[in-house]
Amino acid sequence: MKIVIAPDSFKESLTALEVATAIEIGFKRVFPDAEYVKLPMADGGEGTVQSLVDATQGKIVEAEVTAPLGEKIKSFFGLSGDGKTAIIEMAAASGLHLVPPEKRNPLITTSYGTGELIKHALDLGVEKFILGIGGSATNDGGVGMLQALGMQCLDAQGKEIGFGGTQLINLERIDAKGLDPRLQNVHIEVACDVNNPLCGERGASAIFGPQKGATPEMVQQLDRALAHFAEVAKRDCGKGICNHAGAGAAGGMGGGLLLLPQVQLKAGVQIVLDTLNLAHYVQDADYVITGEGRMDAQSIMGKTPIGVARTAKQFNKPVIAIVGCLREDYDVVFTHGIDAVFPIIRQLGALPDILKQGEQNLISAAQNVARLLALK
Amino acid sequence: MKIVIAPDSFKESLTALEVATAIEIGFKRVFPDAEYVKLPMADGGEGTVQSLVDATQGKIVEAEVTAPLGEKIKSFFGLSGDGKTAIIEMAAASGLHLVPPEKRNPLITTSYGTGELIKHALDLGVEKFILGIGGSATNDGGVGMLQALGMQCLDAQGKEIGFGGTQLINLERIDAKGLDPRLQNVHIEVACDVNNPLCGERGASAIFGPQKGATPEMVQQLDRALAHFAEVAKRDCGKGICNHAGAGAAGGMGGGLLLLPQVQLKAGVQIVLDTLNLAHYVQDADYVITGEGRMDAQSIMGKTPIGVARTAKQFNKPVIAIVGCLREDYDVVFTHGIDAVFPIIRQLGALPDILKQGEQNLISAAQNVARLLALK
Repeated sequence: MKIVIAPDSFKESLTALEVATAIEIGFKRVFPDAEYVKLPMADGGEGTVQSLVDATQGKIVEAEVTAPLGEKIKSFFGLSGDGKTAIIEMAAASGLHLVPPEKRNPLITTSYGTGELIKHALDLGVEKFILGIGGSATNDGGVGMLQALGMQCLDAQGKEIGFGGTQLINLERIDAKGLDPRLQNVHIEVACDVNNPLCGERGASAIFGPQKGATPEMVQQLDRALAHFAEVAKRDCGKGICNHAGAGAAGGMGGGLLLLPQVQLKAGVQIVLDTLNLAHYVQDADYVITGEGRMDAQSIMGKTPIGVARTAKQFNKPVIAIVGCLREDYDVVFTHGIDAVFPIIRQLGALPDILKQGEQNLISAAQNVARLLALK
Repeated sequence: MKIVIAPDSFKESLTALEVATAIEIGFKRVFPDAEYVKLPMADGGEGTVQSLVDATQGKIVEAEVTAPLGEKIKSFFGLSGDGKTAIIEMAAASGLHLVPPEKRNPLITTSYGTGELIKHALDLGVEKFILGIGGSATNDGGVGMLQALGMQCLDAQGKEIGFGGTQLINLERIDAKGLDPRLQNVHIEVACDVNNPLCGERGASAIFGPQKGATPEMVQQLDRALAHFAEVAKRDCGKGICNHAGAGAAGGMGGGLLLLPQVQLKAGVQIVLDTLNLAHYVQDADYVITGEGRMDAQSIMGKTPIGVARTAKQFNKPVIAIVGCLREDYDVVFTHGIDAVFPIIRQLGALPDILKQGEQNLISAAQNVARLLALK
């Protein structure tokens, strides 16, 4: 018997590898002789670096970068086991969680630190990037990131414009001649699960600005600045990014990235599925076990278990989800490839206690699922 | 496919019938054409009347009786669908929960009301009694109950002794000539899960007295009184009840009941299993589903799911438990016939909310168990 265990992390409780290991322990109590493949998964959001590092036996690399408000901070990115792929979460350098709530202001926050992370990884000789852009504090169209990589974004005086979304309105010219030449030879896959355009009613500023601290007036100001950026980019770089699906992701980071040589926006979970080659492992599996911290109706919108399930169903494999908690509206997952789902909570308690019990509860749930399968 | 659903109630949330119905709903979503047998179970404790009434399509009968401290209260007992069996919970007339904590005093509490319930049921022409004796407030050796049924328990002046365990010391003579003659023709099965003797270190007063409000001095006083009662009973009734296993149950109620004509002390869950003839339904079942509100290591001590599992395992049937919550130490149930167990909690919340979600959570858990079985 072959069992593929491909869960996401349980946020605030267990990494995806820890989840996979706990499930394996539970199953092994029932099927000690089965073949197990553990693939710590992710969806391009928080936890993607850890999962891909764990899955490829890579490592975490620390680096000092510029935080959204300009100060220097310790950040990190992942390096795959073969040293060829860097895995970066934009939030690690330019994340909303790095800015205290009272200081959140997308007029001035910059994505510069994310560009620095990319530069650090280039120094290590990587050939490929996987870049998650969720959770950003910025609305600068990725211009800070571009500047960090040597793209010149100049004002009327021929000087680099400053940090922050509001500065884009001063942009007169973009010059790519200083762009880091190593970018010509690397491929960047951007995990992007939204299809919002750069500007307008469904654009970055209108949709994602408010959660980053933008008032309605700031949204208008930021939207005009991004539109201006798109015009200059079209003229100087020959690329129309304004209406590109996903350009509005992460405060326009999706759009800014499109100005780099080899960039592709892709569903986050698909990047992870492809990178880890889940299909290869699943094709001769007897069971596929997945999971996530919380399953609900939103889980069908690009979350890991559904991505795993879709891949498994290409080979007609049974898919069982084991989850931290399960919302009332979850049962739509049954029509998206999940055969059965089991929450792990065994008794009520305070959240911190329950999170601490996560591993034991997972082992217990996995063991009982396996015991039921053993009845066959 | 035939599925037998034989759960206990989920205390404070759902009756056993409600539990069985929810499990059936969940299973029917997956196996709409299966044959279902729902047997609301119990273990002789709280909920036994409701379960056996539900299982036999009987009814609840209300009756006014004497509460432990002597006042009149509305109580109840169950009558089976064929009208031949009365199901009585001693706690409904003589229960600790009927006495406010500050008034709990086993020196004066009486089991008289339980005798009155028996009398009410005799008036309805029943042939058999199932009597659960858990949760009593009394330590009177069942003498109050005997008096209510016409047994004369007299003092030196030839007058009936008063209510309460402390009065037994005044007992001079027991005379059965006034005992309700209908008791000669009925069989009384007493649900008794302890084997404590009437008196001594492991007797009713020492072991169960303190939880009913007895101080160490009161325990000694009550123990002497019960020993005196046993001596008088041996002389006048010819029955040695002092060291009979279970005589110490319910403040000596087990012993007092032995003075009635046709009485048998039996494990509570066994009485229910036999009454509902679980073995008959299980023998050709494909799956047996059971459950209880909380499963833990104590569950193997006479609780419903283990009783159900033992019966099912006589026929080698798979047994799946679905439970309200599951304590860390539960896994000993695997060596007592339970094949797999699933807790139903789907997310954290306040206890009252979780109890309210019980039915939906049960349906969900049952559905997922069935979905897993359907993978076969």
